[in-house]
Amino acid sequence: MHAQELISTHPHVKGNTNDALIACVESCFDCAQACVACADACLGESTVQQLTQCIRLNLDCADICGAAGSIATRRTGSNEQVIQSALEACSLACRLCQQECETHASHHEHCRICAAACEDCAGACEAALQTFGRKGH
Amino acid sequence: MHAQELISTHPHVKGNTNDALIACVESCFDCAQACVACADACLGESTVQQLTQCIRLNLDCADICGAAGSIATRRTGSNEQVIQSALEACSLACRLCQQECETHASHHEHCRICAAACEDCAGACEAALQTFGRKGH
Amino acid sequence: MHAQELISTHPHVKGNTNDALIACVESCFDCAQACVACADACLGESTVQQLTQCIRLNLDCADICGAAGSIATRRTGSNEQVIQSALEACSLACRLCQQECETHASHHEHCRICAAACEDCAGACEAALQTFGRKGH
Amino acid sequence: MHAQELISTHPHVKGNTNDALIACVESCFDCAQACVACADACLGESTVQQLTQCIRLNLDCADICGAAGSIATRRTGSNEQVIQSALEACSLACRLCQQECETHASHHEHCRICAAACEDCAGACEAALQTFGRKGH
Repeated sequence: MHAQELISTHPHVKGNTNDALIACVESCFDCAQACVACADACLGESTVQQLTQCIRLNLDCADICGAAGSIATRRTGSNEQVIQSALEACSLACRLCQQECETHASHHEHCRICAAACEDCAGACEAALQTFGRKGH
Repeated sequence: MHAQELISTHPHVKGNTNDALIACVESCFDCAQACVACADACLGESTVQQLTQCIRLNLDCADICGAAGSIATRRTGSNEQVIQSALEACSLACRLCQQECETHASHHEHCRICAAACEDCAGACEAALQTFGRKGH
Repeated sequence: MHAQELISTHPHVKGNTNDALIACVESCFDCAQACVACADACLGESTVQQLTQCIRLNLDCADICGAAGSIATRRTGSNEQVIQSALEACSLACRLCQQECETHASHHEHCRICAAACEDCAGACEAALQTFGRKGH
Repeated sequence: MHAQELISTHPHVKGNTNDALIACVESCFDCAQACVACADACLGESTVQQLTQCIRLNLDCADICGAAGSIATRRTGSNEQVIQSALEACSLACRLCQQECETHASHHEHCRICAAACEDCAGACEAALQTFGRKGH
């Protein structure tokens, strides 16, 4: 992705990047795609009846990851409270989706991979959240 | 919008609707559109230089409203923690966008209207949040 | 929705609105919500195994409706080719989703309602497309 | 991104992937992020007044890239006409955004990088479109 390169050229950032927040942006877009893909793969399984909760969590997680990724991308002006609140919602959605996907990981490779993407994204959101209040973005 | 009619036909809802949550869904989609429109109208003003913070808050608000509206629509399985966290982030984004738009409302009709849409949506999110823990959805 | 009121206050529009395009914006946001709701209601049916194609079309339709609704909202500068192309994709997705939902409408009220929302949106996109090349927006 | 790994595990794909379509999915999510970032960086420039058309095209491009990336991810059932139409809209939006960003590339690094992301994505959409009608996805 071009997030690191692009955000570092923002006129208010000028190379003074919050690398944890940029890594979080990349994880959010990655996890949004992974959750769309896992929901769709679950839907294609002959056992879809047993995967409806997983699909629900995947779709919710995809939606909040997409929003959080866009919100956390922006550097013009200031909206730190909303970034934090969006990342908290995203982290929670990722943790719950990860847990659900892990229960299907032994049967479905897509759930194993999606659980890993969710775990990465939750961790990235949490690391980004730790940078607020301590340094600018 | 078809939200009330549609959600009441969900097989797990069967007419037993959480009307505050459905009203919130409609407000989220309405506010998402309003914030996209206000960001764009601010961008078209000759004084855009003074409206960049407003545009930033509009765009963030549009993103979280869209995600929250979709998440709050779903009734299959259960993901109440994520609904709540998304609505909290949405309510916060709406309140901050409302406040910013209000400071421009005397000069720009679109900011006055968008502030009203944000106020409606924040109130609808807060009303929906109050229903959790007290009754099903 | 606030679309009509808001877009008419855009500094480049000044009351000279393309009403078909604004109606299309409202239909796109409505249909996005309807398709998210119908996908979720289908997922909650005990016969979900027979509804996977419907869910697929619902999710695709929701995605393109959301994008088309935002793109068709904007009036700053000009991007008419992209508006048209997005509305064409949206109209197509709505027609196909409508057809699929109609095949389930006798069994599932949500599919009947969603088919109506898709039909409205497809018609609104087509009416908006007819205004291009003939008058400004 | 996890797109290649995840889509190859879809039960209907079973390793028989359309690699051009998967590359296109990754490019769409990348370009969506790039366009959100470039719109925001343009908004932060002291010369924002001269960049409003660029911001408009960035925002439209981000919206269609996000929708096309999700639509092109899905493999359950079939919706090839909508995939093609969404990729055509996406390719067009990327080409127009690329051209606009290139006119600012000598002054703004973010526009130079975003133009490259748009060019990549347009090319990936076009390569994916060429695979339709010739092999399954």
